[in-house]
Amino acid sequence: MASVDVGVALLGYGTVGSAVHRLLVESGDEIERATGHRLRVVRALVRDVAKERRFPPGDGVLTTDFAAIRDDPRVTVVAEVMGGLEPAGTWVRDLLRSGTPVVSANKQLIAREGADLFATASAAGVQLRFEASVCAAIPVVKVLREALVVSNVHRVLGIVNGTTNFVLSRMEAGASYADALAEAQALGYAERDPSDDVSGADAAAKMAILATVAFGSRVRLDEVEWRGIEEIEPAHIAAAAELGMVVRLVGIATLVDGAVDVRVQPAFVHRSHALAAVGGAINAIMLQGDAIREITLEGPGAGGIETASAVVADLVSVVGTAGTGFLQNDACWRELPRLDPDAWRSPHYLHLTVADRPGVLAHVTSRLAAHDVSVARLIQRPSDGDASLDLVLHEARCGSLARAAAEIAALPEVRERPFLAPVVSGRPL
Amino acid sequence: MASVDVGVALLGYGTVGSAVHRLLVESGDEIERATGHRLRVVRALVRDVAKERRFPPGDGVLTTDFAAIRDDPRVTVVAEVMGGLEPAGTWVRDLLRSGTPVVSANKQLIAREGADLFATASAAGVQLRFEASVCAAIPVVKVLREALVVSNVHRVLGIVNGTTNFVLSRMEAGASYADALAEAQALGYAERDPSDDVSGADAAAKMAILATVAFGSRVRLDEVEWRGIEEIEPAHIAAAAELGMVVRLVGIATLVDGAVDVRVQPAFVHRSHALAAVGGAINAIMLQGDAIREITLEGPGAGGIETASAVVADLVSVVGTAGTGFLQNDACWRELPRLDPDAWRSPHYLHLTVADRPGVLAHVTSRLAAHDVSVARLIQRPSDGDASLDLVLHEARCGSLARAAAEIAALPEVRERPFLAPVVSGRPL
Repeated sequence: MASVDVGVALLGYGTVGSAVHRLLVESGDEIERATGHRLRVVRALVRDVAKERRFPPGDGVLTTDFAAIRDDPRVTVVAEVMGGLEPAGTWVRDLLRSGTPVVSANKQLIAREGADLFATASAAGVQLRFEASVCAAIPVVKVLREALVVSNVHRVLGIVNGTTNFVLSRMEAGASYADALAEAQALGYAERDPSDDVSGADAAAKMAILATVAFGSRVRLDEVEWRGIEEIEPAHIAAAAELGMVVRLVGIATLVDGAVDVRVQPAFVHRSHALAAVGGAINAIMLQGDAIREITLEGPGAGGIETASAVVADLVSVVGTAGTGFLQNDACWRELPRLDPDAWRSPHYLHLTVADRPGVLAHVTSRLAAHDVSVARLIQRPSDGDASLDLVLHEARCGSLARAAAEIAALPEVRERPFLAPVVSGRPL
Repeated sequence: MASVDVGVALLGYGTVGSAVHRLLVESGDEIERATGHRLRVVRALVRDVAKERRFPPGDGVLTTDFAAIRDDPRVTVVAEVMGGLEPAGTWVRDLLRSGTPVVSANKQLIAREGADLFATASAAGVQLRFEASVCAAIPVVKVLREALVVSNVHRVLGIVNGTTNFVLSRMEAGASYADALAEAQALGYAERDPSDDVSGADAAAKMAILATVAFGSRVRLDEVEWRGIEEIEPAHIAAAAELGMVVRLVGIATLVDGAVDVRVQPAFVHRSHALAAVGGAINAIMLQGDAIREITLEGPGAGGIETASAVVADLVSVVGTAGTGFLQNDACWRELPRLDPDAWRSPHYLHLTVADRPGVLAHVTSRLAAHDVSVARLIQRPSDGDASLDLVLHEARCGSLARAAAEIAALPEVRERPFLAPVVSGRPL
């Protein structure tokens, strides 16, 4: 097959953009073998043409003018690696409308404006790929859309934020939350303002995208319930260890009777579960479906070169499938209702600090029983004159649990707000 | 896009073939959304048309005559799900030559005759896909060829045989080898004649295919060194536990200085390593490369519906990329030399039973030192009047280790043949 040059433009030429260029140059032969084409960066949009770059862009490649990219007839496909909602969103829309396929690494853009972007792409009959927007080099979008097309995935479990997983892993090794977070910042895993990570917001955006692709129905970011790890204390980690579990920030997307539920929260994960083995700044996504039982993908979920590798894989797939109609349509083909959040069912862990007084255990357990929540395991131990209770509760409706926990919180013997977290387990409690 | 029927023929209509048909029927809408086409089974080759089938083939679909499939103008793509080298090999070749793309689930055929089959496919300009031939529903071939096209994968670690992993997991829980194997047979994980599994031969065929795809150079089955799990005793499992490790049958494919080494053998895997968490009849493949650090795929590596799901994904990819040239070429594009097996480097575990006599430890360690093998950890304990030695050895050339072990075996104080296994660890010993 004759080698034809395919012109690539980059929106952004920072860490990811320059790494995309480097990979395209260094792996030109591999790409040509796979696609029959040689991909060449002909344009890259930057704010400052004079700034020093990690990989030389080549003469005349850098421009500060978006129109120079939009109107360049050599540009066959564009990689958006600039981040932010605007102007990235407007520019991606412009390109799609004019019939140029786009590959995006922009999680916030895809999670927030996916519906509109994919409609634009479909109308123009061009591809919009976004592997790099979720968990960098882990090819979960490709696997969901191409390998598991017939497997009816009904549950996605994900550790999709490396920063929080690093912090929880360090706490497991004995560090305090503050020290673990400071260490993550020193190592470059966490931003100076880590709130997007520790609050669960970053994981929520990724889970919204994953649920959308897995279930074929748009999940908007504001439909995801999320909690972060700020409230996790060494005592929770220790209690988990005693129960044979570890604490992880887990995204859980579920399809139940035709309704979708997506949430991110600290969870108690059984040591025998694949997600429990995921330590440090690593991401893992477990896909459960009819034909596949469960498949887990694990790897680095962040990083410049890792993200660039996913961008290049998408560029290769766009070029390789151009003109076929393959996967050109929006991944969303149905509109599923949201599950009433109270109706979501899971086993849970419950921690209480109570006055060490006769009758208190009866009060607590009667509140649980009143809401049909049954106890699988209970550990009571003295704690500074009070009693500390760790309970593992059998699967129950989330709403029932919340009501039982509220009633328990109101008991005069209860010292602190109860701490509740779902239990993730591959086997009976 | 107008829906066009694509005629599919199946070679074989057993467990996998009938499941492929069922998935194509039940997921027809999903497939049409992804490809713009509806895939319909128009022919299926069987030995006995009258036999009862798990999924109704439809009127006139079953045939006992290969020519009826080869010459049917409706047949656009064929799935080979019959197994065995012949006549499957001849038929697949015939189809490829006549310009019909083929999807194969046949591990032995791809591992043994891949070179010839891919040359035939390339010459005819049609695709030969084979995801289902390795680890069923785990999409490792697609990930290697499409997602990691630019990541320079240089090491593949795989637990690619569920039977042996199940047996080793049961032994970890206290079962004997014989009882664990009998349990695997009772559960249908192991054949009545389990020799292909327990000898490592099945894993070796899979690793040959994975190494071929990962490194782009043909690895023939007879170039893989393999050992099985027959020699594993409860004492090895116990020693591993004491060292913070577990025993797994691990396939290791390595690219070192432009040379390839592929081997399958029992390995001691550190508990902190992702492969240590893989228990039961599960498969996992870890891919290590420049741009991705490491990505692990885990899931069921066998089963009728799981294998069928991979066959259907390949059919979808063939139809979705038809006419593009995308991935139509052989995955092999270079001829790398084999690494001298003695030159392969790894840390190792060494077990010895020796007479409990002064000087024996000095004899053993001086033999190691003479071959530049240094000891990271050593545990000595009494054992029926003798002494049992468990050693963890720092990374060394395999050949040096083998020579040291041979000299140690010849020492008069050594009671049994030394047991040697590589150590798999993500961190310093």
